[in-house]
Amino acid sequence: MVSASDFVGRDIISIKDFTRDEIDYILRVAGEMEPLAKTGSDMLKGKIMATLFFEPSTRTRLSFETAMYKLGGSVIGFSGPEASSIMKGESLADTVRVVEKYASIIVLRHPAEGAARFAAEYANVPVINAGSGAEEHPTQALLDLYTIVREKGQIDGLTIALMGDLKYARTIHSLAYALSLYKVRLIFISPELLRMRREILEDIRGRVEVYEQTSIEDVLPEIDVLYVTRIQKERFPDIAEYAKVRGSYRIDLAILKKAKKDLIILHPLPRVDEVSVEVDSTPFAKYFQQVENGVVLRMALLALVLGAIKE
Amino acid sequence: MVSASDFVGRDIISIKDFTRDEIDYILRVAGEMEPLAKTGSDMLKGKIMATLFFEPSTRTRLSFETAMYKLGGSVIGFSGPEASSIMKGESLADTVRVVEKYASIIVLRHPAEGAARFAAEYANVPVINAGSGAEEHPTQALLDLYTIVREKGQIDGLTIALMGDLKYARTIHSLAYALSLYKVRLIFISPELLRMRREILEDIRGRVEVYEQTSIEDVLPEIDVLYVTRIQKERFPDIAEYAKVRGSYRIDLAILKKAKKDLIILHPLPRVDEVSVEVDSTPFAKYFQQVENGVVLRMALLALVLGAIKE
Amino acid sequence: MVSASDFVGRDIISIKDFTRDEIDYILRVAGEMEPLAKTGSDMLKGKIMATLFFEPSTRTRLSFETAMYKLGGSVIGFSGPEASSIMKGESLADTVRVVEKYASIIVLRHPAEGAARFAAEYANVPVINAGSGAEEHPTQALLDLYTIVREKGQIDGLTIALMGDLKYARTIHSLAYALSLYKVRLIFISPELLRMRREILEDIRGRVEVYEQTSIEDVLPEIDVLYVTRIQKERFPDIAEYAKVRGSYRIDLAILKKAKKDLIILHPLPRVDEVSVEVDSTPFAKYFQQVENGVVLRMALLALVLGAIKE
Repeated sequence: MVSASDFVGRDIISIKDFTRDEIDYILRVAGEMEPLAKTGSDMLKGKIMATLFFEPSTRTRLSFETAMYKLGGSVIGFSGPEASSIMKGESLADTVRVVEKYASIIVLRHPAEGAARFAAEYANVPVINAGSGAEEHPTQALLDLYTIVREKGQIDGLTIALMGDLKYARTIHSLAYALSLYKVRLIFISPELLRMRREILEDIRGRVEVYEQTSIEDVLPEIDVLYVTRIQKERFPDIAEYAKVRGSYRIDLAILKKAKKDLIILHPLPRVDEVSVEVDSTPFAKYFQQVENGVVLRMALLALVLGAIKE
Repeated sequence: MVSASDFVGRDIISIKDFTRDEIDYILRVAGEMEPLAKTGSDMLKGKIMATLFFEPSTRTRLSFETAMYKLGGSVIGFSGPEASSIMKGESLADTVRVVEKYASIIVLRHPAEGAARFAAEYANVPVINAGSGAEEHPTQALLDLYTIVREKGQIDGLTIALMGDLKYARTIHSLAYALSLYKVRLIFISPELLRMRREILEDIRGRVEVYEQTSIEDVLPEIDVLYVTRIQKERFPDIAEYAKVRGSYRIDLAILKKAKKDLIILHPLPRVDEVSVEVDSTPFAKYFQQVENGVVLRMALLALVLGAIKE
Repeated sequence: MVSASDFVGRDIISIKDFTRDEIDYILRVAGEMEPLAKTGSDMLKGKIMATLFFEPSTRTRLSFETAMYKLGGSVIGFSGPEASSIMKGESLADTVRVVEKYASIIVLRHPAEGAARFAAEYANVPVINAGSGAEEHPTQALLDLYTIVREKGQIDGLTIALMGDLKYARTIHSLAYALSLYKVRLIFISPELLRMRREILEDIRGRVEVYEQTSIEDVLPEIDVLYVTRIQKERFPDIAEYAKVRGSYRIDLAILKKAKKDLIILHPLPRVDEVSVEVDSTPFAKYFQQVENGVVLRMALLALVLGAIKE
């Protein structure tokens, strides 16, 4: 049986460090945070969170800071030009050993692969990975799962499509892995050039049904959850190829006529035009709700790791 | 009758959105904030304010943050290089819809004309305009009015001069409009090149007596409130012209010999040399008091808009 | 007799402004802050600290902010690109007179010699010097002293060596002066080019025994406290000279075989390689403990200056 004490002092580095039972426990605690997100709380009063953003990610930083403030804690940190001056001046190991004297918990964003795990090995306080290298982005995957549970009641039994750039999008790999812990059908929809990486496919294929498609048209009527990511021009050697692809992986009202009535559309944001703005006001659109869910999910993680949740 | 409930959830975009009665109400609440500015308060405990500064304005940002902290709230936000990365990454509409999931109120500074009103249309939380484009800067105008009331008892009956760059200075237009709601005489003193814009003159002429001057000499003895703004070199095609003008629109002890004993001098800051530092220690100088008044005025707005003021 | 009231409203500009008795009093209060650093406190609730960092110093900034948050206060401020825009826009005197309307205390970091004292003359609130020019860095010296007292019980009677760049390192001059108020033996170890400045030597020679060395080898067995600073390449006209020096002023396990069992090693950080990472896990290493001590020392200063400490 998973209990709150299993999380005290723990690092949040990769979604792969968690069992399905542990993930379910976290999602349950996130649900309990919803009223506190409205009223505020003193649960972490006197605690300090450090946000060390060695590369910018304003949305993620603001989400963590909001979560900490709603629990009554304080925030210190850096991001932007200060970060590069820190990087030049000392090793990441030393930075972490300095900052742990200030903060009860470190939230780290770093361009280097493996940086979060490295930092966690040196730190005596918990480290939460807010994205490092092209590695997983575990808190994004958890908030995606939480959004599905919140909207659909449960994850088991759903047909879930991930569409767009499945090769490079950081959030996709953590999410595909996490979903494979549930009883789902996964459909990966992407241009040939941006297909899901083979090693991830191999990894999850043993656990769940997986299908690959280059077009959404045929499969849309079966989909319960559609997760869209942005396709970036830079991925294409040929601009003409990009132009063609761009139009085919774009969700608008016309195509949604074929969708299930209770389809939900998720997106990690920022969105360019892969989901048309006309979709925003439909009941399909849950990507701004995802942002709100990100706050309660991160409140849950902070409260659990800092030992503020009693069984 | 104006009441506190008229302000709950309201956007603060332009001074023109407010009646004189509403402005008077805000100024009264600002007065009630003065003791709280000294002691601090828990009025907005658990609330979060987002400061989205798409262009830098350190003084304005610090003033809003101070106001929020004095009311017991928290602050998230960005400014500087992070802002430009946000602007490149997504539309202002999407940024606002993300940030409203974090914050109870958004304070926006933006280089584009109309940006604050646009943001307010998308946001489900109140938006306060901290300056957008060359448009009005309503909270500056309100703190200017508050300073006049606080120092003079009332605005009606005063002779008020606005001097310097009346054409481009952002704060001047909001202020001139706001003053025209009162029974005042307005004197606009500026070089020919930087005269008050015609459309603003036309607008307020119907309500108050307006005079235009190119020199302060003759009118100084009649003035109760002198509002000075900086004249920027870049406005002049000819540097010799600038040099001449600069000396003529500079306030020092010598010229103040002709002033009323109870003249007050205001300035939106930063000041270069248009008010000599020797004036700082005279009873005329109220420009640093304005800074202090800016905090209580913004406390009043935050508390009103967030529904923390009871009738 | 020194009492808490001696510190209320006082500026912290130079270590030379304090008597030994006053320093001892501050160190005692720092000790009393240790439990509060663990639990947090409401001692400065409702107070705002402004961090005006006209040059970056992330560690110092985070240390002050942590101290303020642990006492229940709030923080506003700027650093990085905003700082240079402020510098261009107005005089330091005006900036200080604006910020004192927002904050109960100003923490200033500035590249110009004498900037902190200048600011303190204009400000009506206390100013703490967080480093200005090549001048003293008083809070660093105080936290160094606190670390010695905490680890050794007292400062009197110790043999203390300062090693590395004794000419340019900002922290060294404040520290040497502060130590000279105690009954210590001081050993200055540096390459010829980076010897302690003559005027400082003359100043402290009358009070304590002082020795100068170009090598640590002979004196290491006598040393109780070894304070290491970084030697920067830029100080050397000849890169070959730098390479030679670098190796000779590096502390590793091999050389520490000659050290006293209870030697402690301090370093102001960031460290490059002048203390080998293999030393970190020995009982000699106290440089990360220094970081923690910096927080309680700054808590003590904030609490004293803002009048929150009762006799």
